[in-house]
Amino acid sequence: MPRYAFKIEYDGRPFCGWQAQSGQPSVQEAIEGALARLESDLPRIAAAGRTDTGVHATGQVAHCDMAREWDPFRLMEAVNYHLRPNPVSVLACARVEESFHARFSAVERRYRFELMARRAPPTFEQGRVWHIRHPLTLAPMQAAARHLIGKHDFTTFRASQCQAASPVKTLDAIEITMHDIPHGQEFHFILRARSFLHNQVRSIVGTLERVGAGAWTPEDLRHALEARDRAACGPVCPPDGLYLTGVGYPNDPFSG
Amino acid sequence: MPRYAFKIEYDGRPFCGWQAQSGQPSVQEAIEGALARLESDLPRIAAAGRTDTGVHATGQVAHCDMAREWDPFRLMEAVNYHLRPNPVSVLACARVEESFHARFSAVERRYRFELMARRAPPTFEQGRVWHIRHPLTLAPMQAAARHLIGKHDFTTFRASQCQAASPVKTLDAIEITMHDIPHGQEFHFILRARSFLHNQVRSIVGTLERVGAGAWTPEDLRHALEARDRAACGPVCPPDGLYLTGVGYPNDPFSG
Repeated sequence: MPRYAFKIEYDGRPFCGWQAQSGQPSVQEAIEGALARLESDLPRIAAAGRTDTGVHATGQVAHCDMAREWDPFRLMEAVNYHLRPNPVSVLACARVEESFHARFSAVERRYRFELMARRAPPTFEQGRVWHIRHPLTLAPMQAAARHLIGKHDFTTFRASQCQAASPVKTLDAIEITMHDIPHGQEFHFILRARSFLHNQVRSIVGTLERVGAGAWTPEDLRHALEARDRAACGPVCPPDGLYLTGVGYPNDPFSG
Repeated sequence: MPRYAFKIEYDGRPFCGWQAQSGQPSVQEAIEGALARLESDLPRIAAAGRTDTGVHATGQVAHCDMAREWDPFRLMEAVNYHLRPNPVSVLACARVEESFHARFSAVERRYRFELMARRAPPTFEQGRVWHIRHPLTLAPMQAAARHLIGKHDFTTFRASQCQAASPVKTLDAIEITMHDIPHGQEFHFILRARSFLHNQVRSIVGTLERVGAGAWTPEDLRHALEARDRAACGPVCPPDGLYLTGVGYPNDPFSG
């Protein structure tokens, strides 16, 4: 059966997350429902990142085995047609080898977390940013984040229900930028790793916010990491501002 | 009665526009409803631009006469508290002279129109951009737009129900920029004038899109303007991508 990879964008607000769960709307079911309009008896689709409830994506990747050969552009168009009016779009589609697996072939995941710091509540961005009403200082957050780069035991920043075999992960990059908006600031946290533990990004951002607010020092964050203890973590921030922005493969199926 | 000016941001999607209409949700009623929680028997509020159904704002200005003196920051906070969960926020509040009128004191309105050109439908931006599926060329649109700058009879670009006394307006600026997004482009049209005719921005952008698509030449647009005939206008584009971004006054009430 010919295999196709999809690059997918979605607004996570109406969904219980990527993964299909009985009785709740999921991104996976929305896409499988659109594919079912094209061919019957398709196998389930697999994604690189099983995003949680309310988490968004601008570059999720999934693959699907179809019964017949499709022109990738026509397949993308047909899936998008049947996805309406769900806030889910296929941005690109490619024919891939049978050895390609959206999840197991991935060598990098990229996430962005968006935080809005201003007095007035968000309007357009309700459910799309973490809104806080106090100002944050950028430099201490950047200094604290440097302690997290590299290979560490991230037990402190791991959800108790995380099912990964090991808490040791390598965080390849974490960049924090500040952007002025009218009457406030936005902060973007950009993280890159081969893979992440459950709630790792939200645990890290929630703790860095405490540093930016002045409640923690960068050294406090280093001690929390070294404690390897979930109880040492700062507050886990809400999913609203989290975006899976891209997935890396040894050969990018969507290039060219 | 002390008068206060508000700078207001709103997502126009759930509203029938700024102006209160019986039986339909309006931005004006949302704000008046929040103010009514603070004081009773308030007069109606007035806004600089009476935006249409589905049109957004990042810098609308309105004023209101309150019965008692308020600290402007506390008034902003109280209105925002009572506005929840409407996608309407007061970004700034200022005490102004009785001679200040949000609509009649304004000497400039600024609008931005956002157009997304890509095959895949918008997800996050549903109702917030005009989505087209074909590419556009920037330079001819910019050349065409130059014909519109200055003082003209804009009858061609004016809705038939427009109630302005004269179709002659001075367009101070129109800038068009292109921004690459994954698998497509976004185009921003930024317009600035003392005041606009009804549907003027949407009529102009809809016509410029025809130029960008290659169906019209920049000269065609000049001839359409000179025709002073509504029938010479290109298609009026949808309200989804339109934002009232700011209002100018001789003395900015929100500065400092």
